Parts: sequence; structure tokens; C-alpha cells
Amino acid sequence: MAKGGITIGIVAPACRIEPTVAESVTALAARLFPERPPALRFHPQCYLSAGHFAGTDEERASALIATANDPAIDAVWFARGGYGSCRIAERVLPALNAAARQKTYLGYSDTGTLLGGLYGAGFAKIAHGPMPSDIRRENGAAAVTRSLQFLVAGSDAGMERSVTPATPTAAFNITILSHLIGTPLEPDLAGHVLMLEEISEAMYRIDRSLGHITAAPGIRRLAGLRLGRCNSITPNTPEFAEDEETVARRWCKLAGIPYLGRADIGHDVENKIVPFGRWRPEAR
Amino acid sequence: MAKGGITIGIVAPACRIEPTVAESVTALAARLFPERPPALRFHPQCYLSAGHFAGTDEERASALIATANDPAIDAVWFARGGYGSCRIAERVLPALNAAARQKTYLGYSDTGTLLGGLYGAGFAKIAHGPMPSDIRRENGAAAVTRSLQFLVAGSDAGMERSVTPATPTAAFNITILSHLIGTPLEPDLAGHVLMLEEISEAMYRIDRSLGHITAAPGIRRLAGLRLGRCNSITPNTPEFAEDEETVARRWCKLAGIPYLGRADIGHDVENKIVPFGRWRPEAR
Repeated sequence: MAKGGITIGIVAPACRIEPTVAESVTALAARLFPERPPALRFHPQCYLSAGHFAGTDEERASALIATANDPAIDAVWFARGGYGSCRIAERVLPALNAAARQKTYLGYSDTGTLLGGLYGAGFAKIAHGPMPSDIRRENGAAAVTRSLQFLVAGSDAGMERSVTPATPTAAFNITILSHLIGTPLEPDLAGHVLMLEEISEAMYRIDRSLGHITAAPGIRRLAGLRLGRCNSITPNTPEFAEDEETVARRWCKLAGIPYLGRADIGHDVENKIVPFGRWRPEAR
Repeated sequence: MAKGGITIGIVAPACRIEPTVAESVTALAARLFPERPPALRFHPQCYLSAGHFAGTDEERASALIATANDPAIDAVWFARGGYGSCRIAERVLPALNAAARQKTYLGYSDTGTLLGGLYGAGFAKIAHGPMPSDIRRENGAAAVTRSLQFLVAGSDAGMERSVTPATPTAAFNITILSHLIGTPLEPDLAGHVLMLEEISEAMYRIDRSLGHITAAPGIRRLAGLRLGRCNSITPNTPEFAEDEETVARRWCKLAGIPYLGRADIGHDVENKIVPFGRWRPEAR
């Protein structure tokens, strides 16, 4: 640990980031924690390129396994989403050791595949929240600051406002959770408040994915569902006639799941942090 | 029955068709079976419009239930895919009676949601094949003829060539099956040869859906998988670098599912008929 700060390992299980992202986030962390700057270890794999992905499946899996299993690293922070986590999840999970189980894991979007699999495998410190790549958004430093304060200081200031100590929570991208349903990666969310968000999908796809998710027997045992933001919804032909909250309410009603209103999460700089289960970070 | 021909009920559980589709298909049937033309009962619901759908969920569900439960009707032929079957499946299935269990059901694409649910519920005469709306394609009469000969004459001339009496089969659109996984509508396909096709999806989506499907424990008990055509694949940014057969082979290998080669199915006029299970129609 550098000057009492923690060490955060950053890997990219899906798409790559530019080195400038690492530079900006490192500079931000130094400004936020001048007394105890965290050591941000951006794995070189973050900058690899193999077609759609930040390196081959083998390279991405190896970087994640090495980072998660390193006892000198306190937290694994996923660099960016995109697409690709599902291609390495089945080989990564069985390779993780006891040191990996002690770490915090933070990310969202495509990396929810790994968060869900880790949570299902009993990893205790999982959270859905901003990633280094969010620094590229307008005012993105606000989002990244939220995650750094959560990881470094254990601050709950950036947590989603409905999160309480009493009720277990979880958060996912809608499409990503849909693709975990019925697989060994689907976590048991019975009794949880589930928050769901989406980006760049047509309304018929959002409707179909929510129908799928809420049809799953495990999901029907939720304590409730909250709908995050569904940003940049793509055109539907013909016009879909229902918005995302209407379809969420309808599916919840059919499934007997309490619809609890909106959640302050989404693919944007306002994206708040949702810890999985009842785990809440300790202030440091 | 008209002149010894069978009666086929046509409903649209997803998107609407134009009345001209019914006229063209009826004329084709009369030409194909001058001695015993089938009675094609296009339910008026086929022409309704409610936003994205051929009528409201209530209207589509009611038309399907009434048609399936009518003992005077021999077969239910889905008019068209699109999107919408998943919104009515949970209310339709429990409402079906003994007469519904005797019928043949034929369709593909979005209506695979219903085919899968019916097959899972023990309905014996389910098949994946061309629909009336295929008449609109160039040379679409060839596709529709295949289905009419299957339904009316029990002809196996239009069956997918790898279908044999010995091995149970099933066929689905990739995205549709992905959205059945882990729900009560997911049929038990253990020991089956599963054929999968896709239309108008990006390669990363095809890859993700195949990863989802092949991760399901039930799917890992397949006898084998065949890949149908993936038509009109939409652009991937960046270029995906793998084609659909490469990703199908990779996922099958990871899942321990024998990859058996291509299947002659797809969203096109060559789309052949795949009966579910070991059911094969009797020639009439």
C-alpha cells in the first residue's frame, strides 16, 4: 500500500480503454487523496486489442485471474464494459483463490456478468457502480470520484439513495441479467431489491428482456424491483406505445414482484453505487 | 372440413399481417389441393393493430386460445413473427384444453416462444417452419407451399434433411430461445438435436446469445447442435473478427455439446420444416 492508501487492480474483461483514461483517473485519485493516494494498477491488458475485445479471451481471463488472486491487491475495478465478460466467466470463476474472495469488485454494464457470477459464488464484497472509462463522459470525474471514494475511503456518499442496511440489494444491466438467467452464473436474488438499467436498446428489446427476467422463478422471489434509467433508447418500428416504466410495472404485476419505483443508476455520470447483498463498506 | 381437407386456424400472436397475405395464401392452397382444399380460417385478430402488435395482449391471447381450443380446427398456424408472443404465453398456456393438445402448431421466429412452451407442456405435434407472412418474400410461395404440404398432406418433402426418425429434434431462433432459458417455458431438450437460426442481429449479440443458451444445464444435455442461417447480420463496431459458425463451434466446445454442422433453416424462402421431438406427420 502506498502511504496508507489501498491498492486497486484494474482489468478490462470486455472492451479496451485508452492509456489516457488511466492517466486521468490516476491524476484524479491523487487530487482526491493527497495524504493517502491509492495505488492504481492498470493491468497492461487494459490496452490490448483483439477484434471487439481488450485482448483475446485468454489474455483477458489471465489478467483478471492474476489480479484477483494477488494478495497485495485490495480491490478489482473493471475498466470498462462493452461486450466480452461472458466469454471468460466460466474459466475465471473456478480459478479464483482465497485472496480473491477477500477483495472488493466494482463495475457495471457488461461486467455485471462477472459481478453476478462472483456474488453467486459467495464473494461478499461486490458493487455496481462507475468505472474508470466513465472519466470520458462530460463531467465524468463526478462518477469516477464516487467510485474512488467508495473503494478508497469506504464512503457511502455515492450509494444509491434507497440502499438501506436492512435489505439486500443488487443491480444489473437488463440485457446482461437476462443472459445470466438459467445459467450457473445466475445469482440467488431471493429477498433482494433488484435495480435494473439499460442503454441503447429498442423498447421491444427492453420489454422482452424484462419479460424474460421476471419469468425466472428465482427472480419472482425478489423483495422488489426498481427501474434505473434506460438511456438512448433506439427507434422502434412501429412506435412501441409504452415506455420503460410502463413495461416494468406490467411485468412486475404479472410476476407478483413489488415495483418500488425508480433507481438512481444508469449509463451516465449520475450512476450511483449499489452494493450487492447486505454488504456495506466500512469507512476508512 | 371442406371437401375432406383439414381446417387450419391462423392467428398472429406477435405482429399483424395484411389481408392480402391471407388472400394470397388461400389462393395458393386452392391451387395446391384442388381436390381437397384446406379451410384456412384467418382469425380477424391477424389484422388488428395496437402499437407494435396485432391487437392488444388480451386480443392476441383470446384469439389464440379460442382457435387452439376449437375442436373443429386441426392445426394452428402462426401468421407471422416480429415481437409479442412472450407477452401472452403465460396467460395462454394454462387456458388450453384437451382439443388444443390434439392439434399441430407451426411457426418460427418470435412464435418459437409459444412452440417451446407448448412442447415443454407436453403438446406432441409442434413444428418449426414457414408462416403465411413468408408469402411476401420473393419466391415466398415455395416456403408457404412447404408448410401447406406438411400441414395438409403430412408430406415430409419439406423437412430439414438431417431430421431422422431416430433422434428428437427442435429448432428455434437464437434470440428467442435465449429468452426462454431459465423460465417455465424452457423445454427439456435433453437428447435432442437443436437447430438454431438468426436474423438481423449483430455478431456480438449472436455470440452472447449462443453463450447464454449453451451455458444452460439443460442445453448441455443436447445430442448435438446445428447452426442454421444467420441472415442480415448487422454491423459490429469494431469488426467482430469471428463469424457465426466460429462462435457456434467455440461455445459448443466449451459446453461439451457436439457441433453437427449447418441446418437448412433461416428467415428466408429456403427455411425447411423441423418437427419437435420424434413426432413426424403421417401422410394423408
